[in-house]
Formats: sequence, structure tokens, C-alpha cells
Amino acid sequence: MRDIAVGLIGSGYIGKTHTIAYKAHTSVFGGPANPVCTALADAGQARADEAATRLGFGRAYGDWRDLVAAPDIDVVAIATPNAMHKDMALAAIRAGKHVYIEKPLALDAREAREIAAALEGTALVHMLGYNYLCNPIIGTLKALLDAGEIGEILHFRGRHNEDYMADPATPWGWRCSRALSGSGTIGDMGSHLISMAMHLVGPVAAICGDIQTVIAERTDGTGKVRAVENEDQAHALVRFRSGAMGVFESSRIAQGKKQGLAFEIVGSKGSVEFDQERMNELRLYDAGAPAGRRGFKTILVDTSCPDFGAFCPAPGHGLGYNDLKVIEVNRLMRAITDGAPVPVNVFDAVVIEEVIDAWLASAAGRSWIDLPPGA
Amino acid sequence: MRDIAVGLIGSGYIGKTHTIAYKAHTSVFGGPANPVCTALADAGQARADEAATRLGFGRAYGDWRDLVAAPDIDVVAIATPNAMHKDMALAAIRAGKHVYIEKPLALDAREAREIAAALEGTALVHMLGYNYLCNPIIGTLKALLDAGEIGEILHFRGRHNEDYMADPATPWGWRCSRALSGSGTIGDMGSHLISMAMHLVGPVAAICGDIQTVIAERTDGTGKVRAVENEDQAHALVRFRSGAMGVFESSRIAQGKKQGLAFEIVGSKGSVEFDQERMNELRLYDAGAPAGRRGFKTILVDTSCPDFGAFCPAPGHGLGYNDLKVIEVNRLMRAITDGAPVPVNVFDAVVIEEVIDAWLASAAGRSWIDLPPGA
Amino acid sequence: MRDIAVGLIGSGYIGKTHTIAYKAHTSVFGGPANPVCTALADAGQARADEAATRLGFGRAYGDWRDLVAAPDIDVVAIATPNAMHKDMALAAIRAGKHVYIEKPLALDAREAREIAAALEGTALVHMLGYNYLCNPIIGTLKALLDAGEIGEILHFRGRHNEDYMADPATPWGWRCSRALSGSGTIGDMGSHLISMAMHLVGPVAAICGDIQTVIAERTDGTGKVRAVENEDQAHALVRFRSGAMGVFESSRIAQGKKQGLAFEIVGSKGSVEFDQERMNELRLYDAGAPAGRRGFKTILVDTSCPDFGAFCPAPGHGLGYNDLKVIEVNRLMRAITDGAPVPVNVFDAVVIEEVIDAWLASAAGRSWIDLPPGA
Amino acid sequence: MRDIAVGLIGSGYIGKTHTIAYKAHTSVFGGPANPVCTALADAGQARADEAATRLGFGRAYGDWRDLVAAPDIDVVAIATPNAMHKDMALAAIRAGKHVYIEKPLALDAREAREIAAALEGTALVHMLGYNYLCNPIIGTLKALLDAGEIGEILHFRGRHNEDYMADPATPWGWRCSRALSGSGTIGDMGSHLISMAMHLVGPVAAICGDIQTVIAERTDGTGKVRAVENEDQAHALVRFRSGAMGVFESSRIAQGKKQGLAFEIVGSKGSVEFDQERMNELRLYDAGAPAGRRGFKTILVDTSCPDFGAFCPAPGHGLGYNDLKVIEVNRLMRAITDGAPVPVNVFDAVVIEEVIDAWLASAAGRSWIDLPPGA
Repeated sequence: MRDIAVGLIGSGYIGKTHTIAYKAHTSVFGGPANPVCTALADAGQARADEAATRLGFGRAYGDWRDLVAAPDIDVVAIATPNAMHKDMALAAIRAGKHVYIEKPLALDAREAREIAAALEGTALVHMLGYNYLCNPIIGTLKALLDAGEIGEILHFRGRHNEDYMADPATPWGWRCSRALSGSGTIGDMGSHLISMAMHLVGPVAAICGDIQTVIAERTDGTGKVRAVENEDQAHALVRFRSGAMGVFESSRIAQGKKQGLAFEIVGSKGSVEFDQERMNELRLYDAGAPAGRRGFKTILVDTSCPDFGAFCPAPGHGLGYNDLKVIEVNRLMRAITDGAPVPVNVFDAVVIEEVIDAWLASAAGRSWIDLPPGA
Repeated sequence: MRDIAVGLIGSGYIGKTHTIAYKAHTSVFGGPANPVCTALADAGQARADEAATRLGFGRAYGDWRDLVAAPDIDVVAIATPNAMHKDMALAAIRAGKHVYIEKPLALDAREAREIAAALEGTALVHMLGYNYLCNPIIGTLKALLDAGEIGEILHFRGRHNEDYMADPATPWGWRCSRALSGSGTIGDMGSHLISMAMHLVGPVAAICGDIQTVIAERTDGTGKVRAVENEDQAHALVRFRSGAMGVFESSRIAQGKKQGLAFEIVGSKGSVEFDQERMNELRLYDAGAPAGRRGFKTILVDTSCPDFGAFCPAPGHGLGYNDLKVIEVNRLMRAITDGAPVPVNVFDAVVIEEVIDAWLASAAGRSWIDLPPGA
Repeated sequence: MRDIAVGLIGSGYIGKTHTIAYKAHTSVFGGPANPVCTALADAGQARADEAATRLGFGRAYGDWRDLVAAPDIDVVAIATPNAMHKDMALAAIRAGKHVYIEKPLALDAREAREIAAALEGTALVHMLGYNYLCNPIIGTLKALLDAGEIGEILHFRGRHNEDYMADPATPWGWRCSRALSGSGTIGDMGSHLISMAMHLVGPVAAICGDIQTVIAERTDGTGKVRAVENEDQAHALVRFRSGAMGVFESSRIAQGKKQGLAFEIVGSKGSVEFDQERMNELRLYDAGAPAGRRGFKTILVDTSCPDFGAFCPAPGHGLGYNDLKVIEVNRLMRAITDGAPVPVNVFDAVVIEEVIDAWLASAAGRSWIDLPPGA
Repeated sequence: MRDIAVGLIGSGYIGKTHTIAYKAHTSVFGGPANPVCTALADAGQARADEAATRLGFGRAYGDWRDLVAAPDIDVVAIATPNAMHKDMALAAIRAGKHVYIEKPLALDAREAREIAAALEGTALVHMLGYNYLCNPIIGTLKALLDAGEIGEILHFRGRHNEDYMADPATPWGWRCSRALSGSGTIGDMGSHLISMAMHLVGPVAAICGDIQTVIAERTDGTGKVRAVENEDQAHALVRFRSGAMGVFESSRIAQGKKQGLAFEIVGSKGSVEFDQERMNELRLYDAGAPAGRRGFKTILVDTSCPDFGAFCPAPGHGLGYNDLKVIEVNRLMRAITDGAPVPVNVFDAVVIEEVIDAWLASAAGRSWIDLPPGA
């Protein structure tokens, strides 16, 4: 089995999630390739050294450009704040590396398109970290939608709400800065929702958003009061290209929600519901059941769901959040080895960025915005 | 204890609900007045006679105008299709009767204002049948919101979705006609949602809707194919006058939902969730709980909730749908006897109609509509 | 439609529940007979007068023997503490009255058999107030069990736990007295569980119990500390005559449970679950569903469930606790009018008392007790 | 950081779970030691070779005795059918290896005591694979019980039910054999329940069981019909040494349950509920909450729970079944490195076996059995 040398940029929360997934991958899936934690880069050699030792990487770079330039690296994984994605991705692509980029792809669609343009004509693998799509029960859900099990999709309502910024005393951070983060909750969590909606219902044709910054100022780590420059909560009306109606919602100040990606899809013959806080369950309503036997059925993950059997043969012995990343890494390995498609590639992510931009612009203009036909 | 003579117009589903509530009222509440099922009117004497016998009314009228004219009737209760409300209400008001009108008040805000105008200067009691507001656990919820228990309200998301028209084979009925029903799902169920949102969060300042008729034609009882003239599903972005953001949703084709009035309110210090399908439960999140002890608490109705103790002293021994109407009738009795306020009077209902009209108009114009300041 | 004159003895919590049901009955069911609140008896004329006025009974008796003797009374309804049931029931039966007796039937099986003996050879209707059996969704559940939908029943686990005595400061009351109440939680709530288990799974063949009085003393209303003479919590292993295994549990000190009658039945082809705190829902697992589509389905009450349609035509517009009593009263009316069977008659209730006695005796003897074959 | 050489015997379902945990351990916990997948043994060299390659072990043994004898192995992990545990454990202990043994420890308490005896006087680390105890939310639950947050524990009801043998067509396997498995569902899943009950409530003083083999015969892989020699379902009444009452239940034929370890604990001041199928949630009822604010609170796992932060800093980003094994491996590493206690060691497991034996014996004798005071 072939080793794939991974160079990871960034060693925070999501960098550790990457690492756990690389290390676990082959014991779970047994192939088709083995991701190796070859090198790690972070800001400054000391910090990089510490992280490489702590997480178990072979070597450390204090400057990510050196990692990108290293000839033995096969994949550059980018797990840094949004504003750094574009330069890192462009450099990696130019160095002929496969890229595995955390979401959102970039600060906006313009940046995203720049990255996409650099990939044109290359054979490089490119994948975004929209890990929630890798959930085996989402695989089952997608399959039943595609099989028409709930008929024609008429309605989608989704939210990705969390409360990690609900406390006004939570410090100002890079996610509050337009320059460092781009949008606020929409890019951070709304992008997960958009990726899920597009995966399940298809492209968005038009959007009409509403956004709000509720906590206008926060104190940063140095004690300085700084403006929050992007939205805390966001709503949107949506029309999908299929004709289905939708509602999107995202918030980083929604008290009580911890991993609050949840949605409902109504079809002409049934409905489905999902909540990431109970990520091993799917609720399915089949309108064709006989009278007195209709109701939402709570289905637990089992080996009939894609990828689940690699973790455990026993039904209902659920997966965790980190396991989704292990599946995502397996998609990357399969793409590199066999050319298999990835859940969200850079071209898909450009469309997500276009929806984000339109959400923001429609909110600013208090009007609907039609997405371009290619979106 | 004083008897209050009720004259009921209409003997369908909701007419029976009224009747059950009148008959049950005094055994539950023991006062302050006793509603008597004095007369019933329906279309044609034979039908009225049958209904009066079946439901236990003292006498029957084949023409509602005769009921309205009867001098011994104190309250005219109007439980007929929407298009008939205005004439009946105006006649009753002019005859000096208290009016108890099923929702929605009228076909549109213009009609609603006509009814309101007739009430100006009278001392008549007027109440709408927005029975979901009478739920004791909603009383508790309202009290905790008013006490600031979840802080400032930042977000409301609500839906009233059912699936009673989801089957294309369900016949065309008066609710599909613009002339007989006005709006479709918005007036039928969305109005409940609007009444709830206004009760809990306050007036709506602006709305931006989206609507869709999914099943364009249905066959009526005579086998004739007829156009469905109003919306099957509807979404809206909302801004409350308080500044809170909202999302409204209503559907009559949402497979799997049976009594699907549900909402979530996010505040700065906590959140609440409610689902009418579990109408005796309230879910409350208190952000002030200590770390490791935060979570949504499922509170069951008990005697600390308004009106509950009249039914049962034992906590969690839940109420049913019909019991809400018993409470509503008690509000009517209290209003007549003591001048106590009712949950939704005609003036309040005018505002609900204005929100409905704006929802429809904003959808037609694909734009936001600001509600007038008095709304 | 025939009037049935009801004479009610007792005007407490459950007496009021009776009254609400008598008053509501005919507006809900429209027949086959109309229960009339003819007379009420309570201890002392003043108390009886007050209650009769408050609840709306035609006349009042300060001595229940006078009520029983009144020639116009058709049904004597007994809603008094357990120790009074036997004498009242015997007097009523001897006076040729139908009897409607609150559960448990008596202090023990010996008393119960005395009542049953008095009924031998009469044509009187006799019914116990095991109202939870009247739930329409329980009707659906019973029908699906009888149709073999979950195969052969293998296992039953049920509890009826509440917390109304969990606080040691809750005063000593008649339910704490062996002379006034007989058993403690077993007779009060365990009897509901036994009635449900027998209704759904069939007769009990053997039982092995364990009981405990946790709060040994309580203060009565006069400030006197008194011994709690019966059990606060109780467990039992059970074998049904069918061969199915069971577990019973009852507690009056189970913190958090408010109407905690809940059970699970495992069959060879599926399972069902029910919780009275969500009394309009049934959870059904069908092992025959295809892989990836198996799960517990939450079915909401609708008109396919017996009796539900009399209350409301709309699915999921749930019933409340008091509505179960309305259905129970309808069973009584049907039994009187048409000879229809009642859910639990005195002969059935004797068997329930025998199970209760065996539960207590097996706990005392730390051993299994076989129930007599007729049980 | 020190490497710990693990030799794993057995490469089935649970052997793979071990492997995933060893490989993931250090990226999650970063120490205090690093388990290395040094050697794997299985029956026959070919099979061992295949498994070692597939799972990523350094070398393979066709005879487990060779693995035990290998001088570089620090820990022998035993993931084989129950009947093989004793010989393997004794050999490993005699070879001076730490032992990590899958549950149940042995076929019965006699065998278990033999293993325990071999450990007397050694400094070896010994740990059983009762992985459900390692759940961070169980850590929180244990802490709140120990702090008296729900008062004195009065009642425990638990079950571990699954349906993996519910289908009579499921083949006869080693778990159906008394010689290979010992007990049936009690040893397999009931042992998890017993370990949890003892962990949370303390030692068991007496037990009275009931068991049943529902499917008397099954066909083995060769087409031969064989007797099922142990129980499919089991119930028990329990008294804890603390005085608390309990009910235990275990089944391998409980249709619909997939990872059905669930329990409820009632205390004098509150209650807790847990269900492994929603393993990242704890339900807590605090009787001290004010009126109208009492209810079961659903708490999601977060960094206030032990070990959770090693996986993810974000609350509610739940763990999976395999993650519990990673925590268990960390306990092993800490025990080897620092002498930290393990959740269940061999001496604890002897007591679990004694409870299992008493459960079976009490069922056979239809009587209570008192556990020895040391149990």
C-alpha cells in the first residue's frame, strides 16, 4: 500500500482533527493508501516544533512556504484562518501538490475563483473539509433522496447554529474580522449548511438574505475593544434550481446549540429530518405507510450506510465527530489513488462562495439575488 | 352564576370543538359565567336541526340571520368558512352581540378593518379563536420571556406545517379558493404562527415572503378539475419591531406534520423551544447554568402554569387539543363578566391580517414590505 | 337518547375528573346515552352542598347511603379512598345500581372477591376506572398486538412511577395507611400498570416482588409524625401465562416522573414502546422493514385509532388526560345501553387485586408466588 | 515519550476496535505513553499474517503462546472468545506481561478467581475492556452522583438489550455454547450493565434472577442444527449494599435495540437517565429547581467532562463508540506509566463474574441469592 506524505499547515483545533484522522485512517479503512504525517508548518519554528512533537509529525517548518516547497510532500493540508487560504492554496497548486483545504475555501468568491483558475488544466486532487457530508447516515439519506423514496423534493429548511459567541464576554477573535474571516457565521457554519443543501437538493437559483451583528463590540486578548465586523446571525429565503423552496439559517449566538447543523426535507411522498447533535440518527416519514402506521422512523446508522462498516460491524454503535474526518481523509486517499470523486472539490466550493456572497449582498440590498446559471 | 347564551353559526369540525368547550367549561372552571348552547345555525333548516340535535343546542336556525336577530342570544360564535365571517360579524355587532370569531378574521385586512370599524365605540366583547395561545405551558413561556429569563429576544423561528393537503388526490375544497378562503396555508395555519409570534415577541416591523402552489389543480367533489388559487407553502423573513430577526414558515403539504406548530426563540441568556405535537412540554435552555449542567430542560405542564389546575391538580397529566378551546371559552366568559382581556381581539386580528397581506404582497413583489407603525 | 342518572360519591380530584367527563360525554360522542349529574354525596351536608354547586350536580347528600338509596339513580360512581369502596359498592349493588368504581377496587383481593360475589347473578353493569386503557393509541397498540404484527410477545417491561411523595415534607395522607389504602404505590399506580400489562399481554402466571418504604415517617396535617405503613417503591419479576417474561415497577418517589406509566413490549417480529407523558404517541419497531430502513416509528394518534374521531378529525391533535375519562364514561354508557363490554369490570379487577396481593406476599417471603390458574 | 509494545490476540470485530484505538491514542492524548502495534496472534499463521498486514501490526504469530513468550511485548491484549481468556491470561501473567482482557473476564467466577490469584503479589497492570465506563459523560454522571447532586440513590433500573440474535435464522455461534461462552446475554451484555451499575451505585448485596432461552435451536455454519445452551433474555431484582433497589435486564433478542445499554437512577433529590444509543447525552432532573422550571435537562458532552477535550474543544461535537476504546487505552497507558487506577481491573471483574453466577443460580433456584460481603 502506497504512502501519501501529508504536509499540514496549522496546528489548532482543526489541525489536530486532521492529525487524528491521518493517524486513524489506515487502521479503519485498510487502504487504498496510507496518509503519513510527514511535516507540519506553523507560524514560527518554536511553535511548529512543539506542535509537530505533540501531534506526531516527522518534521516542522516555521514558514509554510518551506513546507509547500518540500519535494517529498504529496498533499498540502490547509487548516489556517480563512484569509491565508488563497496564498497557501495557490502556492501549493503551483508546486504541484494536491490540496486539502479547510472550509470556507476563501474570503469570498473572487478569491475562490482565483484558486479554481490555478487548478485548470492540472491533474491535482483538491478537496474541501466539508466533513459533515461524510456521515454514513447522510450517505443513506442521499441515496434515498436520489432513489425518489420521498418523491419530488418540495422544501428544505436548514440551520447551522451554535452558541460559541453568544456570551458577549467571549473575546474578539479573527472570525470577527472581515479582513481575516470574510463573512461571520455564514462562512463559518452557514457554509456547512449550504454544502449540505446543495449536496442533497441541488444548486441554488436565487437567495434573499437577512443578517445581523448582535454584539457590536468585543474585547480582544490585549484588552482592546474592537468592532465585530461581520454577522452574528443570518437568515435566507432560497429557491433551488429544481424549484424547491428553502430556508437557510446560521447563527453563532444561538444559546443552547452546540453542533447545531439540522435540517428537514419535505418531499411529495415523505420527509426526512436530521440533527448533527444526534449524528447517528435519521428520521424518515413515509407517506405511503398504511393508515395508523405512519410516523417518523428513527433509523440508526448500520453497515447498510456507506463507510460505516469500516468502523464497526454492529448497528447503532455510532460514530463521532472525528470519525467523519477519517472518512473524509479516505475520500482524499481514494481520489489520489483511484481518481474517485471527492464530496466537495474547489470548483464546488467556488459555488458555495458564490452563494455566501449572494446571501450577504441580498441582505445588504434587501432584495433577492439570482445566482448565475452555472452556480 | 350567570348564564351566557351562545348562538353558534356552523356545525363542522370547529363547530363541534366549540360545542365540546361550551359544555365542558363550567365543570372545569366553575365560573365566572356559564355558556349555554342556546341556538345553532347552519345552511338550511334540515341541516341545522340535525346538528342542533347531535350537538345538543336548544334550537336551530336554517338562516344565520335569524340567529343573529334572536334577542336572547348574548354571543354569536362564527365557525364558518372565511368568506362568510365579515357579513356575519357585522350583523352580529350591529345586533349588539358579543362576537367570537374563528380565525382568520376575514379574507384580508380590508375586510378585517371593516369589522373593527363596526366595533369602535361599542362595549361589545370580541375574541378570535387563536386557541393555541391558551395553552397553559405557553402561559408559562410567555411569563418567563416577559421576566427576561432568557434575556433579550434575538431570534424567532416558527412554522405551522401540516400535511392534510399533501396528497394530490385530496379533493379541491373551499380553502383552495381565493374568493372563499383568501390566502391558503398562510391564513389557515400561518395565522396561528403569526398570532403566536406576536404574542411572544411583539409586533412585526417588516416581512419578505416567498410562496408556492405546488399542486396546481385538484378535483372537487363533483369530479370537476379546478385550479388551486392560493399557496400550498410559504416562507418569510421577518424583522420584529424590537429588532429581533425571525423566520416564518407555513405549509399544508408538509408530509409527516399533523399539528405542526413549532417554534424556537433564542435570547441573549437562553432559548426556548415548543412543538404543538407535544403540547404539554416546553424546552428551556438557561445559559446561566454551571458548566457541565447546561442543556435543554423538558418541562411538563403543571399547576404553576395558568389555567392548568382547573383541569387537574397532578403535574404532567397533560391537556388535549380540545382543552385549549375550553380555556379560550373561559377567557370569553371572563371578558363578558369582568372585562378581562382576551388573547386576541378583533383589533389584534386586524394586525394579523395586515401581516398576512404583507407576506403575500412581498412574495408577489419579491421584496421586503414594511408594516405600518401601528401594526 | 336516554338519560342515565349518575350519583357520584366523592368530590376530590378524581370526583371532578368524573364530573368533567359526564358533562363532556354527549357533546363528544353524541350517544348512545346521556349521563346526567343527578346527585353527589360527600361527608357532611355542607361539604356535599358546596361540591354539588361547584361541580353542577342536581342535588347533594351528606350521607352516601342516602344517595345509594335514591330510586332515580341509575349508576353509583365511587370516587372515594380505597377503604370505603367495599361498603359503598356492596350497598349500591344491593340497591340494584350499576357501579362505576375508581381503582383499585378494594383494599385487597378478599374484599374484591366480596364485591364480585355480590354481583353474581345480577345483570348490573360494573366498571373500574382504569382510564389509561381507554387511550385511543392504546387501542391501536392492542389491535396490532392481537394481529400478530410484532409476532409472539416475549418481553414486557413496565413502570408506573411518579414523584408526588418524593419530598419527605409531603404530609402523611390516607394513602400511607394500610387500613385506609391497603398497599402503597402498588395499589395506587402499580394497579394501572398491572391492568395495562394484562390487557396487552394477558394473565400473570407468577410473580416475585421486592418492595421498600423509603421515607419511614411523615407528618400529618395536624403536625403529628406518623409511620408510613406501605411501600414507596416496588419491583417485580413476572411470568405471564403465555410464557412471556416481564418486569413491573412502581414508585411514588421517583423524582422527575409526573405521569410515568411507560412500557416496552418486545415481540419476535418487532417492538412497541409507550409513555403516558406523551400519551398521543406510540413507538413501533418492525423488524421486517428492509435493511437501512429499520427503526422505531413515532405514530401520532389519528382517526384510525378507536374513539379518537369523536374528539377531532385532525390527526395528531392530541387528547388529554381528562379525555380518557370521557371515553371511559362512553364505555359505561354503551355497556348500560347495549351490553357492550367494559375495559375492566369487577371480575377483572379481582384478578388485579390478586396480583397485587401476590406482589406484596412474594416480597415479604422473598420468593416467587404462582397465581391461581383462573387469575 | 515511552513506547508500550502491545501484543494482540484475536483479530475479529473487537480486535480491530483495539487496533484503531492503539493507532489513534497518541494523536488524541499526546501521552503519557505510546502504544505500539507490535505483534498480533491468531489461529494459524496464514490468518495471523493476513490480519497483521490488514491492521498494521509489526509481526504475526500463528500460536498465541509464541506472542506471550516474546520478550519485547509489554502488554498482552486478549480479544478472543471467552473460553480462551483464562489460559491466555494465566500464561501472560506468568510471562510477566500486563494484561488487557476483553469482557467478560472468564466463563465463570471460579475461572475468574484463578486469574486473580495469579496476579496476587505481582505489580502487573490488569484491565478489562468495559469500555462504556470510559464515556466522558459517564464521568460527569459519576461525579455528580458522588457529589450527592441527586441525593441518596434509591433506585437503579438498567438494561443492556440488543437484537443481534433476534432473528431465528441468525446462525448458531460460539456465544450459544456454554463451553465456549459460559452464560449467554448476561455475560455478553449483562456484564456491561453490571459493571456500570457497580461503578455508579456500588456493590450488589443480593440478586434474584429470571432467564429464558427463547430460540432453543439454531443452525450452525455447517448446516447442523444445534441447541442454544444459554439464555437469550434475563431479568433480575437487585439490592445494592447501599440499600438501593435495582432492576437488571439483558437480552440479545430485543427487536429494535442496537446498542441498548440504558439506565435510570433515582435519587432522593433528583434523577439521571442515560442511553448508550445517544451516548453523548445525559438527562438530569433536579428536584430543587423552582416550580415550573423542573424537568429533565439534556446535557451534551463538553470539555467539562473528563477526557473529552482531548478529542475536540467544541461542546456537543460528540464521540463515537470507537473513541471510548481510545480512552480505555489511555487508562491503560496511564496505569502502566503512572500507576493510575483503571476503570475495571481483574479483581473488580471477579466480582462481576460473581454477580453473573448469582444471577444464573438464582434464576435456576427461583430464589434470592446473597452475594458474599466482599463482592
